[in-house]
Amino acid sequence: MICMVDVHTPAAAGLSPSSSKPEERLAAGRTGYALDRQHVFHSWSAQKAIEPMTVVDAAGSWIWDGEGNRILDLASQLVFTNAGHKHPKIIAAIQEQAQRLCTVAPQHANDARSEAARLITELLPDDINHVFFTNGGADANEHAVRMARLHTGRRKVFSAYRSYHGGTQLAVNLTGDPRRIPNDDDAAVVHFLPAYPYRSYFSAETQEQESERALTHLRSMLLLEGPDQVAALILESVPGTAGIYVPPVGYMQGVRELCDEFGIVFIADEVMAGFGRTGKWFAFEHFGIEPDIVTFAKGVNSGYVPLGGVAMDDAVYNTFAEKPYPGGLTYSGHPLAAAAAVANIGAMREEQMVENAAALGQELIAPRLQQMLADHPSVGDVRGLGAFWAIELVRDQQTKEPLAPYGQTHPVMNQLVASAKSQGVLPFMNMNRLHICPPLNITTQDITFGLNVIDDVLSISDQHATP
Amino acid sequence: MICMVDVHTPAAAGLSPSSSKPEERLAAGRTGYALDRQHVFHSWSAQKAIEPMTVVDAAGSWIWDGEGNRILDLASQLVFTNAGHKHPKIIAAIQEQAQRLCTVAPQHANDARSEAARLITELLPDDINHVFFTNGGADANEHAVRMARLHTGRRKVFSAYRSYHGGTQLAVNLTGDPRRIPNDDDAAVVHFLPAYPYRSYFSAETQEQESERALTHLRSMLLLEGPDQVAALILESVPGTAGIYVPPVGYMQGVRELCDEFGIVFIADEVMAGFGRTGKWFAFEHFGIEPDIVTFAKGVNSGYVPLGGVAMDDAVYNTFAEKPYPGGLTYSGHPLAAAAAVANIGAMREEQMVENAAALGQELIAPRLQQMLADHPSVGDVRGLGAFWAIELVRDQQTKEPLAPYGQTHPVMNQLVASAKSQGVLPFMNMNRLHICPPLNITTQDITFGLNVIDDVLSISDQHATP
Repeated sequence: MICMVDVHTPAAAGLSPSSSKPEERLAAGRTGYALDRQHVFHSWSAQKAIEPMTVVDAAGSWIWDGEGNRILDLASQLVFTNAGHKHPKIIAAIQEQAQRLCTVAPQHANDARSEAARLITELLPDDINHVFFTNGGADANEHAVRMARLHTGRRKVFSAYRSYHGGTQLAVNLTGDPRRIPNDDDAAVVHFLPAYPYRSYFSAETQEQESERALTHLRSMLLLEGPDQVAALILESVPGTAGIYVPPVGYMQGVRELCDEFGIVFIADEVMAGFGRTGKWFAFEHFGIEPDIVTFAKGVNSGYVPLGGVAMDDAVYNTFAEKPYPGGLTYSGHPLAAAAAVANIGAMREEQMVENAAALGQELIAPRLQQMLADHPSVGDVRGLGAFWAIELVRDQQTKEPLAPYGQTHPVMNQLVASAKSQGVLPFMNMNRLHICPPLNITTQDITFGLNVIDDVLSISDQHATP
Repeated sequence: MICMVDVHTPAAAGLSPSSSKPEERLAAGRTGYALDRQHVFHSWSAQKAIEPMTVVDAAGSWIWDGEGNRILDLASQLVFTNAGHKHPKIIAAIQEQAQRLCTVAPQHANDARSEAARLITELLPDDINHVFFTNGGADANEHAVRMARLHTGRRKVFSAYRSYHGGTQLAVNLTGDPRRIPNDDDAAVVHFLPAYPYRSYFSAETQEQESERALTHLRSMLLLEGPDQVAALILESVPGTAGIYVPPVGYMQGVRELCDEFGIVFIADEVMAGFGRTGKWFAFEHFGIEPDIVTFAKGVNSGYVPLGGVAMDDAVYNTFAEKPYPGGLTYSGHPLAAAAAVANIGAMREEQMVENAAALGQELIAPRLQQMLADHPSVGDVRGLGAFWAIELVRDQQTKEPLAPYGQTHPVMNQLVASAKSQGVLPFMNMNRLHICPPLNITTQDITFGLNVIDDVLSISDQHATP
């Protein structure tokens, strides 16, 4: 049944951490944890309410915590170690570039940066030929919106509810999840309801209805807001943290057509879904469309060095050919980050990781999650593509009442993750969902082990669901 | 006369690039340039109007361009290679951490991040004990403002004209230089006039008058805006790109007192001035004050890996002890960046780079720039601290008419830089100013060479000045 491409180094196979000794890991864990609690302020957290897991080593799809446990990382950290941990080719490239030239100011040219830009544009549609590098996805989205505003001379931006576009002020205002609410601002962002078939906002009963009605809704909102005021529409090609809900057939084409009709710049946020995660290099390829701007980060270099970017088509580029673009950053096109991207893309190609992710999804994860849906009353929906999957947990498959309310968590969710972790598996958790997002090169054996544990822990949530 | 601490590795002394061969550098330069022009979008630029210099190698205070020229980098790239290029201890730390563990998600704990946080807080006042890591200075300032707003429950932010705080949307709105204007937004930022003795906005004739009147102005603006609406006041301890103008005696203390009086969070932006640049670890130390929040980037690890951060006092930290901080980012506390910071701070301590910068400024740069002021009719003002200096060029020393108008450049400025470059020296240029910001460990021989060339090229601007 499985015919995955299985090219792995011993390290990537997760047999052993490639450097440290057990006693060193335990010591690093103790010190790391104690100093973390004394001096490190964590993202999105009440600082005294958290007890972070210490990660002291990793290899391929596996991490080692500070207590000596080996854990399968089905979250790819925050969905970015697409090539797995400690890929020898990426490490070697970083080490070599560190020796050649770590850093260069953005106003200069550098061959590592140039080659990364060439490789990235090579993977994108023909008329996307330039890359503005940033440090991550948030600033990529901030700059993409600025480019679109200056390109169109308009100000409003449309973005979807149930989305995530980053943590800086404009990016979090683009965001359509509860993390925006405490940061709400007059950012000229209009949020529309997305196509989300499992919990249709449009009373749709089929994928076709959902697509059609969601497009009607979007068109109505554009007309009511004044489409000639709208600079850009930003959309995750497959929304990530907000639920890995794959747009229904026709939806993305319809969005593209609306943008064309009204002269709106279509920004595809591929920060989480890009670079092979969905089984194609970019998730928008599934829908036969071409965005005007593509933003990326995470998978571009598997997060080995902070890097993001904005890839733009020639029309947007030409707006800034003769007049200055009023934006920039010190580390734009950092050589160390760029060298890691070049090696990462090279390794993904040589080891066919994108094809592997596609096969992983189709042949292994999809059928297994479908079986979980049939077996577990607490599983309301399973969905995804490639190495990018969500399991949505409910109290009742008929009513679809979520196990944790929107924007909140529930003790049972924490129990699920704790139980999985005690069995050596770490999924990504968000509200009432578990996400399965392993490295693209995870082995058949490892993903099978991981899914077995997920299958097992769902018996905990089943106790809170209508049989 | 000079008694600088001169501790240098051979590489840091700029004798030779430590890795590549001449023919490799030429080839890298050709390819790097051609692909840059095809695929790389540059910060703050009209894309077809620029001809970026290619940098193919570097060592200590020197860089090699794509045409085989060795050039002394008096700009430290963008004022960030505080420890110089290719410092062997920082390279070794990056290579070692790349092998140990490149990357970890922000929700976990990691010993490299923990140690960096410990070291940074150790350098800061006693009640600043926690660090929120970001990717650079812009997002550090964005998050600092968010923390201040949530800590105070207020929204307005005061920042100075003639300042730079970053390129993302909120950060560029904090900024008080012309780069903000095309990005102007309703960001609840109020700009006040800074203390800038050379071109006093307050008709002051002495430093004492400037300090007193600038504080009266700031107090008036706070009262007129409603001080109980003001969350934060953000100020570069010594403004950088905007002109390296050192606040006059009493000014920073006065700002601190105003913040105390009205319960306003004082954010010191130490992105450019921090980590030894001014001859102290942080520039605010010159003024005997303690900020509530310190933002940093650049010098924290000499830019070898993208890193920035927000260091906060216990009062701000405690606001987020029990309730969540609504902000974050994927690469917060990236282990590779953190390891580079640990090595950078270690090397700066062991090699006494901060002391070196102080001596460099007092004993070598200051007297030499004072002599240039006396010798060159086009030099209007020289000012700075440590390894952080500005030469302001004018058409007339009496009228102070700038050689390039505010917010613009002038062909003579480009001629100056081209001439310096042809003699093997690269200063930082902004409007009508040259900035001298070498690595903190530049040798006496190298800085003397660099200043000789600057002295020489000022004869070009002298031709455009009243004798």
